[in-house]
Amino acid sequence: MSFNHREEHVDDHMLLVQANLDDMNPEWMTYVMDKLFDAGANDVYMVPIIMKRGRPGVMLNVLVDEGRLSSIEDIIFSETTTLGIRYLHASCHRLAREFEHVETPWGPLTVKVGYHEGKLVQFAPEFKECEQVARIHDVPLKKVYEEVRMLFIGQKREKNALPK
Amino acid sequence: MSFNHREEHVDDHMLLVQANLDDMNPEWMTYVMDKLFDAGANDVYMVPIIMKRGRPGVMLNVLVDEGRLSSIEDIIFSETTTLGIRYLHASCHRLAREFEHVETPWGPLTVKVGYHEGKLVQFAPEFKECEQVARIHDVPLKKVYEEVRMLFIGQKREKNALPK
Amino acid sequence: MSFNHREEHVDDHMLLVQANLDDMNPEWMTYVMDKLFDAGANDVYMVPIIMKRGRPGVMLNVLVDEGRLSSIEDIIFSETTTLGIRYLHASCHRLAREFEHVETPWGPLTVKVGYHEGKLVQFAPEFKECEQVARIHDVPLKKVYEEVRMLFIGQKREKNALPK
Amino acid sequence: MSFNHREEHVDDHMLLVQANLDDMNPEWMTYVMDKLFDAGANDVYMVPIIMKRGRPGVMLNVLVDEGRLSSIEDIIFSETTTLGIRYLHASCHRLAREFEHVETPWGPLTVKVGYHEGKLVQFAPEFKECEQVARIHDVPLKKVYEEVRMLFIGQKREKNALPK
Amino acid sequence: MSFNHREEHVDDHMLLVQANLDDMNPEWMTYVMDKLFDAGANDVYMVPIIMKRGRPGVMLNVLVDEGRLSSIEDIIFSETTTLGIRYLHASCHRLAREFEHVETPWGPLTVKVGYHEGKLVQFAPEFKECEQVARIHDVPLKKVYEEVRMLFIGQKREKNALPK
Amino acid sequence: MSFNHREEHVDDHMLLVQANLDDMNPEWMTYVMDKLFDAGANDVYMVPIIMKRGRPGVMLNVLVDEGRLSSIEDIIFSETTTLGIRYLHASCHRLAREFEHVETPWGPLTVKVGYHEGKLVQFAPEFKECEQVARIHDVPLKKVYEEVRMLFIGQKREKNALPK
Repeated sequence: MSFNHREEHVDDHMLLVQANLDDMNPEWMTYVMDKLFDAGANDVYMVPIIMKRGRPGVMLNVLVDEGRLSSIEDIIFSETTTLGIRYLHASCHRLAREFEHVETPWGPLTVKVGYHEGKLVQFAPEFKECEQVARIHDVPLKKVYEEVRMLFIGQKREKNALPK
Repeated sequence: MSFNHREEHVDDHMLLVQANLDDMNPEWMTYVMDKLFDAGANDVYMVPIIMKRGRPGVMLNVLVDEGRLSSIEDIIFSETTTLGIRYLHASCHRLAREFEHVETPWGPLTVKVGYHEGKLVQFAPEFKECEQVARIHDVPLKKVYEEVRMLFIGQKREKNALPK
Repeated sequence: MSFNHREEHVDDHMLLVQANLDDMNPEWMTYVMDKLFDAGANDVYMVPIIMKRGRPGVMLNVLVDEGRLSSIEDIIFSETTTLGIRYLHASCHRLAREFEHVETPWGPLTVKVGYHEGKLVQFAPEFKECEQVARIHDVPLKKVYEEVRMLFIGQKREKNALPK
Repeated sequence: MSFNHREEHVDDHMLLVQANLDDMNPEWMTYVMDKLFDAGANDVYMVPIIMKRGRPGVMLNVLVDEGRLSSIEDIIFSETTTLGIRYLHASCHRLAREFEHVETPWGPLTVKVGYHEGKLVQFAPEFKECEQVARIHDVPLKKVYEEVRMLFIGQKREKNALPK
Repeated sequence: MSFNHREEHVDDHMLLVQANLDDMNPEWMTYVMDKLFDAGANDVYMVPIIMKRGRPGVMLNVLVDEGRLSSIEDIIFSETTTLGIRYLHASCHRLAREFEHVETPWGPLTVKVGYHEGKLVQFAPEFKECEQVARIHDVPLKKVYEEVRMLFIGQKREKNALPK
Repeated sequence: MSFNHREEHVDDHMLLVQANLDDMNPEWMTYVMDKLFDAGANDVYMVPIIMKRGRPGVMLNVLVDEGRLSSIEDIIFSETTTLGIRYLHASCHRLAREFEHVETPWGPLTVKVGYHEGKLVQFAPEFKECEQVARIHDVPLKKVYEEVRMLFIGQKREKNALPK
């Protein structure tokens, strides 16, 4: 499974890029977020804020590698209404990640697993796959999640990879 | 002081008018709120919400007497981008209110007082007056508030209107 | 254009269905919203709230016709983690709506138009079409919107449907 | 287990009581919420809102039986700074609830279970118990939850109460 | 128009000053914001947050040049209730800005224009002027915006400054 | 009173640690916050955000000394569901603080006082003590606060420590 293994590491060359938007059609936001992810943003999120004169604005946040700043800025300037952006230097500590698989009644499904100092600390069913299963098999999404989580734990315990 | 006295009462003919806005320039919101207050709205406020496709929208809320619904609707339809509004019936319980005055180092200032079942339960310095005093006399706004509150309490205790 | 005309009207048989969620994986929310729209909800939106013990919860809101309450409830109970829902009676005032078309450099695009008491008060380019044009032609989404709006206004003024 | 069984039902005599607070020390809010729960409120939650002049206010919401309105109002008027409250009529649809128990490595723990039309749709470990176990046994809270959920499902499947 | 031209630039000596407020009368916030802008803050905004014990607090954010830190701090310490502030270093990328004018039925109005790498990417009618026109001429604010935007685009296209 | 005096200072070795959570049970948040405070965090707060695909997430923020980063990270990785955290360097300017006491009808109560450049700028009754008094003596919390504030001001003025 080494092909999908990514080592735990700290990346000290990240930027948190921010733009406060108080005069933009909110309808455009999801489109802008998609474009930013496509351009290599590690994360994109919005924070509801209150701006000058009590305006209900939105702060766009983009977490991105320093080397990609300029392409992120191009998107923000061309797709939003802002006249300025700011960025702050950030360090990102990312867990080692693996994608494992469990056999379920609906076929094999993926579980994203996170390791901190060699210890399994996170595991989460892949949202898109579970969503697809829920739709196709007409079963509540929360049941799909529950089942995948149970099967993953059972599988790990068999291998003694998880303490009982 | 009967000229400014308003009896405690329940008004069962109020409407809570709501419009979800996801494609409107937020810059316009404060202007719309001002117009709604001018048209007789009892209260106007905004709630940050998440709408279809994850859009960061704003829910406009107007509390208004049933008789004024149509003028409120006219403003919302002409000044915002919504294609529909909804309203719910509400009852408003309002305290008896009096405006009293205290002598302060900066001249007489008004205190809004609320009575529930004849008992003084609320008192608050008038924001606009305190703000003006703070600006003119270059004193922190919070000190003006504090002083007005202390003087009001002292005045009430002298008259035994407030328990020590 | 009468085929797509819907008269302005007030619908007094609507419900605002609400569920406060403080122990649910937020990842599931968009899936739940999609299912609620599919089941005939007129609108679905989320409000960030603070619940018991300071928990950061989400209030799910569904605006729906009284006749569809039970299918909406079935989805909420099976797809979320709530043990109860509440609903309030609401009236919806909806504008007359028409879908018109403008010729653009990227082909014909749709504009949703709203009329209040016979007067054109709203018009908005269709988001999905504009988004598709922006992607395919690699032009900023905000420019597509701007162009569609300008062309629509020009077209209306030629017909004297809009005051210059 | 009939002693803790509560039938699924709709209660049409509920009120949603609301007060917008824009001049109150937020530090007091949790105390007020506790008092409201003590006085019989079914639910209490806060919504961040934007009020007149762009003030960052909080809307206090209390869901309560009609018969308890007056004691709820007394608390709001004496403990907050509001000069008025409003209330809207609401219906509450509550699932049948049972409290069941599972044997865990840390002793027996409670699971709250919800039934809709006789079908088990919800189950959730009791937060307070899990929190106590996590603290005492120094184990991550999320692991306690996971374990309780797995054991509950296993127990139900043995009894064929849950489809495999 | 060179008199109002500001070149596009990156300013690496900015600070993002933050204070979390959980025990302050929100009524004072707009006054504090005004004072901070008067003292030279480039931007001031508020973020609704949840603080210790679940309190609904507000994070005050001030974007300011390093050289003005101390006067900003003086205002925050004297006008709010905080016992501490924090600041983070930020870089601001600001577009070249020009103020241009368009002739409208209500007289000449200003448009703020932003250039990124020499290309016009933003233009926005001046809010205060549009608001005044809307009030005086009793026309919806959104129509004033629309008209100014159309006239600006028309003017630019005549000069071939904007691609058709 | 020197035993509880802390000098005003700027600490340049602080970190603002952030994790965006979009797939975690919000019920766990207060427990996590408690653990982070126990591990030496100076402040912990949550920001409601909108994440990828429109998910209503929560950004966990921890303000902490650089030397404690690793124990804070251990808690976040073991108690939340995140696969990564980020941190930004921050400076904290903290006022000189003293705890003083006032005699009240309910016994002596503590007031936290803040000094900026030797000048008293803040004072706040201790929440936990006031809350306890309010509960035991069945008096509104806001009255306890008011009384403590008045007594503190009176005491300071007698000593000429506060300008009248």
